[in-house]
Amino acid sequence: MSTEAERRQRGLATLSAMTGTAGEAVVASLQDIAPDLGEWLVSFAYGDVVSRPGLDKRSRQFATVAALTAMGHAPVQLKSHIHYALNVGCTAAEIVEVILQMGVYAGFPCTLNAIAIAREVFRERGVSAVGAGTDRKTGG
Amino acid sequence: MSTEAERRQRGLATLSAMTGTAGEAVVASLQDIAPDLGEWLVSFAYGDVVSRPGLDKRSRQFATVAALTAMGHAPVQLKSHIHYALNVGCTAAEIVEVILQMGVYAGFPCTLNAIAIAREVFRERGVSAVGAGTDRKTGG
Amino acid sequence: MSTEAERRQRGLATLSAMTGTAGEAVVASLQDIAPDLGEWLVSFAYGDVVSRPGLDKRSRQFATVAALTAMGHAPVQLKSHIHYALNVGCTAAEIVEVILQMGVYAGFPCTLNAIAIAREVFRERGVSAVGAGTDRKTGG
Amino acid sequence: MSTEAERRQRGLATLSAMTGTAGEAVVASLQDIAPDLGEWLVSFAYGDVVSRPGLDKRSRQFATVAALTAMGHAPVQLKSHIHYALNVGCTAAEIVEVILQMGVYAGFPCTLNAIAIAREVFRERGVSAVGAGTDRKTGG
Amino acid sequence: MSTEAERRQRGLATLSAMTGTAGEAVVASLQDIAPDLGEWLVSFAYGDVVSRPGLDKRSRQFATVAALTAMGHAPVQLKSHIHYALNVGCTAAEIVEVILQMGVYAGFPCTLNAIAIAREVFRERGVSAVGAGTDRKTGG
Amino acid sequence: MSTEAERRQRGLATLSAMTGTAGEAVVASLQDIAPDLGEWLVSFAYGDVVSRPGLDKRSRQFATVAALTAMGHAPVQLKSHIHYALNVGCTAAEIVEVILQMGVYAGFPCTLNAIAIAREVFRERGVSAVGAGTDRKTGG
Repeated sequence: MSTEAERRQRGLATLSAMTGTAGEAVVASLQDIAPDLGEWLVSFAYGDVVSRPGLDKRSRQFATVAALTAMGHAPVQLKSHIHYALNVGCTAAEIVEVILQMGVYAGFPCTLNAIAIAREVFRERGVSAVGAGTDRKTGG
Repeated sequence: MSTEAERRQRGLATLSAMTGTAGEAVVASLQDIAPDLGEWLVSFAYGDVVSRPGLDKRSRQFATVAALTAMGHAPVQLKSHIHYALNVGCTAAEIVEVILQMGVYAGFPCTLNAIAIAREVFRERGVSAVGAGTDRKTGG
Repeated sequence: MSTEAERRQRGLATLSAMTGTAGEAVVASLQDIAPDLGEWLVSFAYGDVVSRPGLDKRSRQFATVAALTAMGHAPVQLKSHIHYALNVGCTAAEIVEVILQMGVYAGFPCTLNAIAIAREVFRERGVSAVGAGTDRKTGG
Repeated sequence: MSTEAERRQRGLATLSAMTGTAGEAVVASLQDIAPDLGEWLVSFAYGDVVSRPGLDKRSRQFATVAALTAMGHAPVQLKSHIHYALNVGCTAAEIVEVILQMGVYAGFPCTLNAIAIAREVFRERGVSAVGAGTDRKTGG
Repeated sequence: MSTEAERRQRGLATLSAMTGTAGEAVVASLQDIAPDLGEWLVSFAYGDVVSRPGLDKRSRQFATVAALTAMGHAPVQLKSHIHYALNVGCTAAEIVEVILQMGVYAGFPCTLNAIAIAREVFRERGVSAVGAGTDRKTGG
Repeated sequence: MSTEAERRQRGLATLSAMTGTAGEAVVASLQDIAPDLGEWLVSFAYGDVVSRPGLDKRSRQFATVAALTAMGHAPVQLKSHIHYALNVGCTAAEIVEVILQMGVYAGFPCTLNAIAIAREVFRERGVSAVGAGTDRKTGG
């Protein structure tokens, strides 16, 4: 069993590795109204869950981007997690693939809205999206 | 642009590779009421989307298991896709990780229900689930 | 403004016309625990809303079957409303079309689960589903 | 079985008939990031599904407006589909009826939010909404 | 059985007690497009349901804030109902507790988005949120 | 900041107080596949969140029953939480009120399905549901 300090330290390390400074900014923004929620994000979400060694960080972000795309009601978090996915080595093209696949399981509106959010992220980071979502066009 | 026959052939190949005979059984079961839906599963869902080369099949299944866990209303499809995830090389432990992570993004009830479904799948296949979901117990 | 008696009478008439005796059975089943909910079904849902003259009953049932298919979490009500759709003159083939279309807007799992429910209804009523969902196969 | 060119041609014809130029604009907007998604909208969503002869276009739009209202997480697509519903001959009053009915099946917040979107559409098109949603007020 | 006038009067009284003038403004805003929806809000939602004596108004608002937080797709209504919760005597700290608890049942994104909305409400009303969501920090 | 042992102890105490032995049975059932999920239920869900002093346990259960009713996809957890609500002093009649109110915010199908689950719970416990959901019938 981890001590509380270990959970927190592990969470902060994972948060930093995955989100840069963005995750800490979310945690800090909660100080005025729900600081314990910030603690849970660090110690529980990132310290207990996301930092577990049983699954690589790229796969974790594919899973989270998929879920947030499919649920459809958390565009702010989806945008953040597309950033985090890029941070841990997912490519823009792979993220687009995950979003496209959700069209099959959650419908085209979810996919269209997530694509619009992904475009914003890619533009903010200057990531080229050319060729993303176009695997089979060559020779088409 | 693929011909219709190419889409279908590609879809059937992917369906077979991922689902064994289960996918074709779903398609066949639709003949009495909505055969075109079966065609769309083969040619669109598997032929156009899931068979795209831009993302590996393991990642695709992590994404689908994540989404079905988080949406919570498609237990039959979730069960099938946990089977398919095992078929393409995801381990039981990795699948459990994806499901656990959804607790953060979609809540504990979604995770608890998906874990119950995963247990059924693992039992049906004789996959050991010992140690899944327990990455940090050693020395705890 | 309708009187309460008019609302109730109108609701019961619409309930009977759309559901046969099934709707009244639902209302009666609530007597032991939430009789006012039964009253609301009659006077509000059927008396105020569903009986409005501004939209024909077939279109209303297409809308309800579509919504229940897309939300995915109310299979009991979806089954009832497929029955009611048949009662007001929607054909099995048209109901299948509505369900298939939801694949685009809510994903294939919702559509697959609704098709399974529709099949049950069609079997219970001896409605032929042959040809439903197959508009373009001729000459295919 | 349709050829790929037939699917595409049929999809474009239906897209144009239902959406005017709006649908093609959506497809074009995807060129930079996910052009295949645009193709799927044309060939699958509109070519395979929405253009099927088994259900009239008005009923299809009632179904889609109902589902998007009830799911609640796709306001951009809901707005577009209210436009498309008007394009294929649904009246403002009928669209309001569908949205009102969703109050029964998906709750008042979904209905209130969809009404706000419908109002925007009606204003943009100069469609009179007077009398919509008021079937029984005369003599009330 | 209440008369229609009694339902309406009771609904208006509850609406006023819970929402101040905000609820009537919502009802008035519907006059141009769906006045009957406004009537249903008054007579059904507030007159029949919310005004029932079997549960105190504070508990009713905890329930509504919880549900709107967990469903995640109705931020406008969530904001209104946080206002109404304060109006009927729920404290800012209690409202934050309900929202935090939804993290367990509906996931952190729902909770984070609802917290952002609660912050807006608290600022608009000059309610101090200091200490909300921090029950155990003293001496921690 | 609590120590890990304090979180666990507090969680177990709250779990026991609210669920009797049911919560521990859920935790025990996870040992074969995801024991850490059981730990999170104890230490995070019950130890960190539900046991917080800022909101009384009755209100917490009203909130949870409301959310699970409105989300609609977790009937197993809804059943458990109706039991827990009774355990902490919510009455059958109050629980029915919360469920009825969700009809306004999440639609009648959610309410009907939750009422059916509540009926099961009340029967299992021999709780009289007579009079629940009927506040205004006297003299009606």
